[in-house]
Amino acid sequence: MKILFTFIPSEKLQNEIQAEFPEHEFHFCKMKSAGSLAEEAEIYVTYGEDLDNSYIEKAKNLKWIMVMSAGMDRMPFEECAKRDILVTNVRGIHKIPMAEFTLGTMLQHVKQYPLLQRKEQQEDWDRKVKVEELAGKNLLVLGIGAIGGETARLAKAFRMTVTGINRSGKQHEYADQTDTFANISAWLPQADFVLSVLPSTYETRYLLEVGHFKLMKDSAVFINIGRGDLVKEEVLLKVMEERMIAHAYLDVFKTEPLPKGHPFWKMDNVTVTPPLSSITRQYLPRSFEIFKHNLRAYVNKEENFINGIDLSRGY
Amino acid sequence: MKILFTFIPSEKLQNEIQAEFPEHEFHFCKMKSAGSLAEEAEIYVTYGEDLDNSYIEKAKNLKWIMVMSAGMDRMPFEECAKRDILVTNVRGIHKIPMAEFTLGTMLQHVKQYPLLQRKEQQEDWDRKVKVEELAGKNLLVLGIGAIGGETARLAKAFRMTVTGINRSGKQHEYADQTDTFANISAWLPQADFVLSVLPSTYETRYLLEVGHFKLMKDSAVFINIGRGDLVKEEVLLKVMEERMIAHAYLDVFKTEPLPKGHPFWKMDNVTVTPPLSSITRQYLPRSFEIFKHNLRAYVNKEENFINGIDLSRGY
Repeated sequence: MKILFTFIPSEKLQNEIQAEFPEHEFHFCKMKSAGSLAEEAEIYVTYGEDLDNSYIEKAKNLKWIMVMSAGMDRMPFEECAKRDILVTNVRGIHKIPMAEFTLGTMLQHVKQYPLLQRKEQQEDWDRKVKVEELAGKNLLVLGIGAIGGETARLAKAFRMTVTGINRSGKQHEYADQTDTFANISAWLPQADFVLSVLPSTYETRYLLEVGHFKLMKDSAVFINIGRGDLVKEEVLLKVMEERMIAHAYLDVFKTEPLPKGHPFWKMDNVTVTPPLSSITRQYLPRSFEIFKHNLRAYVNKEENFINGIDLSRGY
Repeated sequence: MKILFTFIPSEKLQNEIQAEFPEHEFHFCKMKSAGSLAEEAEIYVTYGEDLDNSYIEKAKNLKWIMVMSAGMDRMPFEECAKRDILVTNVRGIHKIPMAEFTLGTMLQHVKQYPLLQRKEQQEDWDRKVKVEELAGKNLLVLGIGAIGGETARLAKAFRMTVTGINRSGKQHEYADQTDTFANISAWLPQADFVLSVLPSTYETRYLLEVGHFKLMKDSAVFINIGRGDLVKEEVLLKVMEERMIAHAYLDVFKTEPLPKGHPFWKMDNVTVTPPLSSITRQYLPRSFEIFKHNLRAYVNKEENFINGIDLSRGY
């Protein structure tokens, strides 16, 4: 069986998987230079951004696409559905790095590391810097699924109080309470940290408005590692210009990369990072583990695939 | 009964304790201006740095000293022992802020927040910054007691492997394994983070030598929130100048404040903070909770004091 990777992983990862499945033929090359391999391969392993209907039509032997990403906005689901092609992805793989990033961000805020760094540059021994604790503080998680849940688990270890928001209001094991989107406003006034890990859907787009930020404490911190369109950019600019809350840590934006000269870069109460929360060196090794599990399931016709996608829903 | 605080807490804390114990007389003033109050008071509440034998001799009614600190190097224990004066302190109160500070420091390191901050100042959208995870990394805790144990608990929540070092090698609930000081060298080669929370004793003074750092990985990180004399300053300077390990985060020093112009301030692989790990706004409120518990025990003659000190040992 031929398996086509449409990206080039490290030699170490290539060798490992070939050694573990010696009976199969692994090929590693970009889609556009795959030539006849694209037709012959039974399995594609892709980041999900390099396929369209025409590729699927030509892929006569294709039976399974393993997407090494959680985002699948650019996958040709219709054509896959027609051909009954299995699609799986690596949903959930981001939860560890993103939860770590969020805790790091919250600690950075309460421990004032950026200020301490400036003091160090000035050789200024200042023990009056107001350092706080996470213990006892309130975290509101907008979208308490895999990533939000992992963040909540760590926050509870830090003795924080956690409120989760999800569609159903179904209780989450690591939240002290969970509520629905309709009731967000009830939880904003006591939140010290408001974290969004929400995807972009018709329900979440522009969900947060000025009124929501007005409900928050002056000292509240907004962290967005979900999608940039949760808040209209002009709304967030107004909120931070008028200092309705203490700080916004933004890892996602309406326009990425954030253009040079954009006011967010310079605002002292806004911290900009390019979407880094989900990136780690463990990303591909962890994705390979999921792929290998699924490959064994595929070969053995066990069908206990991790993260099988319902093509009619797209997730 | 008269209770003398030899420091001035916030009015809020003063009012709260007076309201909670209306039958007692609370006085708040520095020792040197206490006058006849020093003789009349049955209880002193002090930071432990303003008493000597002569004060104890004059304090005719004194039966209990509550020390709102964990360090008691300057307490006149002999005179207290002669008079059979009860001494209690707030040992353990530092564990939450210090463990948070340590996790914040480790996250700062793996997530490269200082580098991200410089990139932000340059409006440089750089997604190639190598961000790592705590998950799967090894933490070696030198001195796994209250503070080290709380740090270990959080590290385990982050899916780290934790090795503890203490005097007896007695297993600690949050360490994967615990060993004695004699065996430190066996654990250094696999440690990603080496944390010291050790106090200064004849056993810990200059405990770490160049050879210990040579055993560590190039990528290892040393965090010292214990005492500055764990490593001779010239040893640590050599280690960091020769880049034997990746980074040292120092919250304690031989000479404090660290003098202006000291090489540690400028070294790119050394991060200097004045001892801040244990400071938080929760310090006094939490100390008051211990004092109030002990005051109830004292009044009711229950004797279930938190942190009673053995005056012959001094801890």
